[in-house]
Amino acid sequence: MNIYDIAKLSGVSIATVSRVMNGSEKVSEKTKQKVMSVIEQEDYTPNVFAQGLGLNTMHTIGIIVPDIADMYMSTAVSILEKHLAEHGYDCILSCSGFSQEQKEAHTRMLISKHIDGLILVGSTYSGHGLDEHETDYIREAGKQVPVFIINGEVEGDNVYSSVCGDRKAAHDAVCDLIAQGRRKILFLTDSLSYSASEKRAGYEEALSENSLPVSGDLNIKLQRSEPHYVRDILLQYTKLSCDAIFATNDSIAVGAVKYANVKGLDIPDDVSIIGYNNSLLSICSEPEITSIDGRSGQLCHDTVDNLIKVLNGCDDIEKCLSLPCQLIKRNTTDF
Amino acid sequence: MNIYDIAKLSGVSIATVSRVMNGSEKVSEKTKQKVMSVIEQEDYTPNVFAQGLGLNTMHTIGIIVPDIADMYMSTAVSILEKHLAEHGYDCILSCSGFSQEQKEAHTRMLISKHIDGLILVGSTYSGHGLDEHETDYIREAGKQVPVFIINGEVEGDNVYSSVCGDRKAAHDAVCDLIAQGRRKILFLTDSLSYSASEKRAGYEEALSENSLPVSGDLNIKLQRSEPHYVRDILLQYTKLSCDAIFATNDSIAVGAVKYANVKGLDIPDDVSIIGYNNSLLSICSEPEITSIDGRSGQLCHDTVDNLIKVLNGCDDIEKCLSLPCQLIKRNTTDF
Repeated sequence: MNIYDIAKLSGVSIATVSRVMNGSEKVSEKTKQKVMSVIEQEDYTPNVFAQGLGLNTMHTIGIIVPDIADMYMSTAVSILEKHLAEHGYDCILSCSGFSQEQKEAHTRMLISKHIDGLILVGSTYSGHGLDEHETDYIREAGKQVPVFIINGEVEGDNVYSSVCGDRKAAHDAVCDLIAQGRRKILFLTDSLSYSASEKRAGYEEALSENSLPVSGDLNIKLQRSEPHYVRDILLQYTKLSCDAIFATNDSIAVGAVKYANVKGLDIPDDVSIIGYNNSLLSICSEPEITSIDGRSGQLCHDTVDNLIKVLNGCDDIEKCLSLPCQLIKRNTTDF
Repeated sequence: MNIYDIAKLSGVSIATVSRVMNGSEKVSEKTKQKVMSVIEQEDYTPNVFAQGLGLNTMHTIGIIVPDIADMYMSTAVSILEKHLAEHGYDCILSCSGFSQEQKEAHTRMLISKHIDGLILVGSTYSGHGLDEHETDYIREAGKQVPVFIINGEVEGDNVYSSVCGDRKAAHDAVCDLIAQGRRKILFLTDSLSYSASEKRAGYEEALSENSLPVSGDLNIKLQRSEPHYVRDILLQYTKLSCDAIFATNDSIAVGAVKYANVKGLDIPDDVSIIGYNNSLLSICSEPEITSIDGRSGQLCHDTVDNLIKVLNGCDDIEKCLSLPCQLIKRNTTDF
């Protein structure tokens, strides 16, 4: 029996239960009596630790990212942190890596820190769709605190998702390439995440719709995304022939630019290149790289707004935020 | 009276006091009696919160950075987090921004989270050298937990510093430029931090040693480091004439490359460019940028090792770690 169970049985939010327990005067007498009667019925003893701290005075949100050195992640955390601070919440960050075991361990660890809410940044937390149980730990966490996922979708009570339409964005960008006469479009990724599989699905749909073959030769899974590594791997494919490259992040796209430069290919005439995330890397490259903006800033902002609403007892929240991506046109494409 | 005072009066580490309080058998009878007698003399009642948690079971280190979206910071935090995890410590991250008020507030906030140690990342925490009191809050924090600064120097009890020799690195790099015949070397920075002022001092020393004038015209303080912003600012200086550019971070150096490209200047023949931090940005640029590696990875690694030693009661720690920088030669210089 925890505060969430009491809230459920009382038909009120945890914030209201907390206010009743802390003797706040902001609760109506009727609500107070309802909550107190449930607490008595269930013989509920509030967790000493939580009570000692004053449950709602921690004002701390846990954030988990796979790797804070990744620019997408660090930018997202920066935005989350600033916006949470505006609402009076501190954040605790933990970096989980990508393994199932570590993702579960870090989630348990942060929950044990008596956080008020949990935000998971990145589609790796929605699993690979291979096993429905791989996201069970997120639903478990949802029994303790509200959980929000940035750019990933997981179903569960008290679990909220947000997605940026990666599938449609990849589809539309590949259609743009085809409309410009590109026929051999290379798909490059270093990930097997939900987000990467959505991008691949959009890419393949665009090819199929335009009666182009979906070829294994034009679909390369990389081990890493570091630009020199990507360049060197591509140079090893001696029979590689493509007139466009779609990369699932900007670091890979920079590697593709370097590959084209070594091969003496003109960008975009001989080969068009599209990156993903619209990061600083896409601007540092020469030529600057056309890139899909996943709107992570807006997703983070809206997610914090919704988290605060949930913590304040509002139940009227969309379970899955959805924002369309934007294609930022630069000099590696001829549109 | 807190556990640090008890440790001081007993002449042992806080870890030992904690072990005595928790009834650990790892403490000699003699030490135990010494600590217990101080506790009795001083009528010390351990903080209920700390005791309830088991003082040394939090295993949490606070980390403060000005801005996690900055690549230097996010890389450093990633390394700190991974290495702390290897030692069984979780981390709490907080982003303070650069204002004195916020740096103080975030330090107080993290201390209130009952952390075992505090790491401040970035030379902004060593102040501007304008007022000795601007680092008082760090010495205050040192009264509660050991404080470690990455790439900054602050004197105080229980405060440990680390520096990477920015002054010498800048001096040596500028000497290299002069040896290659460069005479009008532009210094570009967006910061007034300790680190930036050290770089400037090294730059000016190199000029003076080589009987070159230290000119205000070749010393530009930028508001931001975003590449397009830097390029556009430089283009506004219509009378700017330089044959080399020394930038205090890689993002500024990328802006300098873009400036040279717009002006039709050959890199490195017409203008040599040196960046700082050896970040991914220096590799994404075309040409790739010669950059000074501040060895932040090693500084972070060694800092965690020292922090763990202090937490384990070792007093034999250097107060200031010092590592020399490395110049990573790429294609924007002719050496």
